[in-house]
Amino acid sequence: MVTRLSNYFLRTLREDPSDAEVKSHRLLVRAGYIRRQAPGIFAWLPLGLKVKAKVEAIVREEMAAAGAHEVHFPALLPRELYEATGRWEEYGDNLFRLQDRKGTDMLLAPTHEEAFTALVKDLYGSYKDLPVTLYQIQDKYRDEARPRAGLLRGREFTMKDAYSFDHTDAGLEASYQVQRDAYERIFTRLGLEYVIVQADAGAMGGSRSEEFLHPTVIGEDTFVRSAGGYAANVEAYVTEVPAEIAIEGQSAAEVFDTPDSETIDKLVAAANADHPRADGREWTAADTLKNVVLKLTNLDGSTELLVVGLPGDRDVDLKRVEVAVAPADVDPAEAEDFVKNPGLVKGYIGPWSPAGAVLGEESATKIRYLLDPRVVSGTSWITGANEAGKHVFGLVAGRDFTADGTIEAAQVLAGDPAPDGSGPVELARGVEIGHVFQLGRKYAEALGLRVLDENGKLVTVTMGSYGIGVTRALALLAELNSDDKGLAWTPEIAPFDLHIIATGKDSAVFDAAETAVADLEKHGFDVLFDDRPKVSPGVKFGDAELLGVPTIVIFGRGVADGEAELWDRRTGERTPIKIEELTAALVAARV
Amino acid sequence: MVTRLSNYFLRTLREDPSDAEVKSHRLLVRAGYIRRQAPGIFAWLPLGLKVKAKVEAIVREEMAAAGAHEVHFPALLPRELYEATGRWEEYGDNLFRLQDRKGTDMLLAPTHEEAFTALVKDLYGSYKDLPVTLYQIQDKYRDEARPRAGLLRGREFTMKDAYSFDHTDAGLEASYQVQRDAYERIFTRLGLEYVIVQADAGAMGGSRSEEFLHPTVIGEDTFVRSAGGYAANVEAYVTEVPAEIAIEGQSAAEVFDTPDSETIDKLVAAANADHPRADGREWTAADTLKNVVLKLTNLDGSTELLVVGLPGDRDVDLKRVEVAVAPADVDPAEAEDFVKNPGLVKGYIGPWSPAGAVLGEESATKIRYLLDPRVVSGTSWITGANEAGKHVFGLVAGRDFTADGTIEAAQVLAGDPAPDGSGPVELARGVEIGHVFQLGRKYAEALGLRVLDENGKLVTVTMGSYGIGVTRALALLAELNSDDKGLAWTPEIAPFDLHIIATGKDSAVFDAAETAVADLEKHGFDVLFDDRPKVSPGVKFGDAELLGVPTIVIFGRGVADGEAELWDRRTGERTPIKIEELTAALVAARV
Repeated sequence: MVTRLSNYFLRTLREDPSDAEVKSHRLLVRAGYIRRQAPGIFAWLPLGLKVKAKVEAIVREEMAAAGAHEVHFPALLPRELYEATGRWEEYGDNLFRLQDRKGTDMLLAPTHEEAFTALVKDLYGSYKDLPVTLYQIQDKYRDEARPRAGLLRGREFTMKDAYSFDHTDAGLEASYQVQRDAYERIFTRLGLEYVIVQADAGAMGGSRSEEFLHPTVIGEDTFVRSAGGYAANVEAYVTEVPAEIAIEGQSAAEVFDTPDSETIDKLVAAANADHPRADGREWTAADTLKNVVLKLTNLDGSTELLVVGLPGDRDVDLKRVEVAVAPADVDPAEAEDFVKNPGLVKGYIGPWSPAGAVLGEESATKIRYLLDPRVVSGTSWITGANEAGKHVFGLVAGRDFTADGTIEAAQVLAGDPAPDGSGPVELARGVEIGHVFQLGRKYAEALGLRVLDENGKLVTVTMGSYGIGVTRALALLAELNSDDKGLAWTPEIAPFDLHIIATGKDSAVFDAAETAVADLEKHGFDVLFDDRPKVSPGVKFGDAELLGVPTIVIFGRGVADGEAELWDRRTGERTPIKIEELTAALVAARV
Repeated sequence: MVTRLSNYFLRTLREDPSDAEVKSHRLLVRAGYIRRQAPGIFAWLPLGLKVKAKVEAIVREEMAAAGAHEVHFPALLPRELYEATGRWEEYGDNLFRLQDRKGTDMLLAPTHEEAFTALVKDLYGSYKDLPVTLYQIQDKYRDEARPRAGLLRGREFTMKDAYSFDHTDAGLEASYQVQRDAYERIFTRLGLEYVIVQADAGAMGGSRSEEFLHPTVIGEDTFVRSAGGYAANVEAYVTEVPAEIAIEGQSAAEVFDTPDSETIDKLVAAANADHPRADGREWTAADTLKNVVLKLTNLDGSTELLVVGLPGDRDVDLKRVEVAVAPADVDPAEAEDFVKNPGLVKGYIGPWSPAGAVLGEESATKIRYLLDPRVVSGTSWITGANEAGKHVFGLVAGRDFTADGTIEAAQVLAGDPAPDGSGPVELARGVEIGHVFQLGRKYAEALGLRVLDENGKLVTVTMGSYGIGVTRALALLAELNSDDKGLAWTPEIAPFDLHIIATGKDSAVFDAAETAVADLEKHGFDVLFDDRPKVSPGVKFGDAELLGVPTIVIFGRGVADGEAELWDRRTGERTPIKIEELTAALVAARV
């Protein structure tokens, strides 16, 4: 195929789009790959569509190799199925809901677990039909609160979603592994570095769950990893619980005046100044018990307060709390919450007062109180005494206060131990490009998907769910394969194999380029030919750098001497080449 | 590629789906090609997806050959653009509307004129950029009042929609012709018979418009054609206006009692019995002027009555009226409308009473009155006298009554003259499979798409719009290429090249089939291999007939003698063939 720039639907732009936050977004718009239609919603122009098709082809090949069957579901689905699994509500504002002309509730599917489950239920009835893994490459919808970074977090986006169906746990484990392996091959072929991290199964309600994260500073997800091989999404990190400490022999708690000590820093300074430790060491933030008031919003819209107690050297990580209290939403408590609950004295909140417990189910206020797992029995704390200007010192967990349970709410810090004993963790940022879940039987149970097993007994099917963000992966590939001049694709995903440029006004140059292009086409190359007659070499070179086809061939003055110039977009290297040797050289270089 | 039935996501069904009205719907569901998700909304299973991809590939090839550039727009779009062209309202209940989490109005696009216009406006600015034709193959949404016949009228469906942009009328004419030619090639390659009929540009607001109709008795569209080459959608048929008749010398109108003559039949009988014609001929329905009361509902929800006067031997064709009064909706008047307008005496309505005009702008009631174009000046009619039990005879148009205008409201009848003088028309039914429009400047004007012309002057762009119903075409192909046993595809669109069946329990038979399949795969055939070990030959043959791959090869007892059997699904013919000659024969037969 030959595509001529003189007659191609393309307009490259000199200016960055004003709303572009990341490089991939800027370059894909400027190079004429995509065009914004609404927040988080894009149209695909010819170049973008070609690259997208290449990414999809790789995904399709590996899905076929993994024995998955391709189907295609509608985006528009009736409410019923999602009602049966509770997700009609659970998705909250992220779901695009609508009614048809008859008032029937419908939705634009954000993911298709329910539909696939219903399909298999509809057609299959025996263990002999299993295992089966189905997939689709399809446009999905999520009404993100903050669509951002171009294709990285869109409201309409293309996903490959696959679903496996087995009648035994061992079968699910095997199906899961097959998909997981396919994902490794896909990202390797795409040239997209990934880290497989343990993830929280969260709202999907499953058992085992791993994310494929592409490590990058522009990532929204934080993950931790140890030199010994542990890797997890921070939401899935599990705190190492220290050993309990003997309570016996610890001195009694004492209340002191601590005026103007609403923050941990001020409290530590006041404690060191006015109430130094007996052993001479300095008090630190880690000696204080910080109590943070949060507000949970349940699916039905009702709210409740929750107080989290954690060592004062850590902040609450709201994303970790969200996982812990799902499907409720979490926000910091607001001023009005303190007004309504005068018992909560801002800056001086604690689990205990001289009169007894003041938080948790045992207290009069009945505000739920959960502790960081590090606050084990026998640990001693400086914490609020529930009266302005007063803190209590030496308050011992298990002796002076208890809680309603523990919660993984504290931020994970670099140097925290990996829960598998593989050493301290470091923190990094990444973008989720794939996710593999062992859903288990949740969806099959909700929708009644059962099959007859070997003994003629009806058993509930167990499922896996596997997703790849196709358009997100494409955006990351643009992010990776680009520089300040434009895109610089790898051959595997480039929109064209070759970008041929004819420069100047000499018709002999254009003729030589035409001849070469025809020959290259004959040899199976997909060629973009910049044959524009009245465009300066500078503009042509600039466009070539912006568009990002990895191999560029320039026909210019050298044609008089039988020479063209090979230009490697990725290294910038330019090499003269005899025109008569061009096709052979390019065929030899072809992967 | 080899696909094994022992390991394929497929379940053929013996029973017809209960909601299936047409053969294609029944067979596509029973053969496991599609599966209903909601009224007019289907999922595509592996076989269906393969056939759909083949149809799309043909469309894509011909669009590329026609110089059109492929892009892809989102289905979910903001209201603004459609508001600017008035279609947000015009589409009425057919549009799926929704709001995002911020309350922004959005829609699921039923067609994309606005979005393409805005894109070209966004990127192009000069006549040098034109002409350009863009297209997409994309899932569209229309909230049909009566989704029916499976894929033939769905609420989600795949369309190829193309849009051309020119700066001159001649340019538009040329772009239109290029697309029209491409459509002829596409339908010819698909093997889908078509008639190109003149169509009303209707709500699209353009000038020239033609439909590609596939003639079939299950079609919802009626069209007319003459032996001389005229063909038009009935909505576009234009009545031949007869010559006027001299008024002078015609006798005065007379009112007669015509009790119990509410219908045309009764009126004609009463006229012949009680008031025979002076010339001895019988009165017929064609001598009467029927006045039909209709109710129009405007976009803003307001309603108004309209009375249509037409020869009594024709009924009103509501679809023709709808085109004439678009964008208003049309329904027959209801009982309450007559109650509210006592002047309208059901069965006795006419344009005149002894007191004067009673319909039209000149009358007291001011009900709009439009006449069939055949009711020319000087024609004489028997019609209602606006009093129960009374009709007027010899009421002459242009002398005794006038109207507010004419309307193409009467049904077209077989034998009516083609407006181009090419003889009488016959009526036929068809399904619209393609539509080409010269939109003109309506959308470009509404959205401000202008370019600089050769003289540096800003001119408004003129557009064409071209659609093919991909999934509808697929359904019609299933309808055509099938019999009572199942589907019987042509090679061009069959999901596989070959369907190989191994029967019995003899492992030598299965081995021979395996060897042949491997060899056929090596020769580039896409093979469906029925290798199921415990399925009877009868079931395998039945499934092969249902699935519809055109060339079937059976390996059975003949293997002992080195023979297989070639089975032509379309003719039913079975021919023995030496296994050693099989591949060569199939390669030779390949198109």
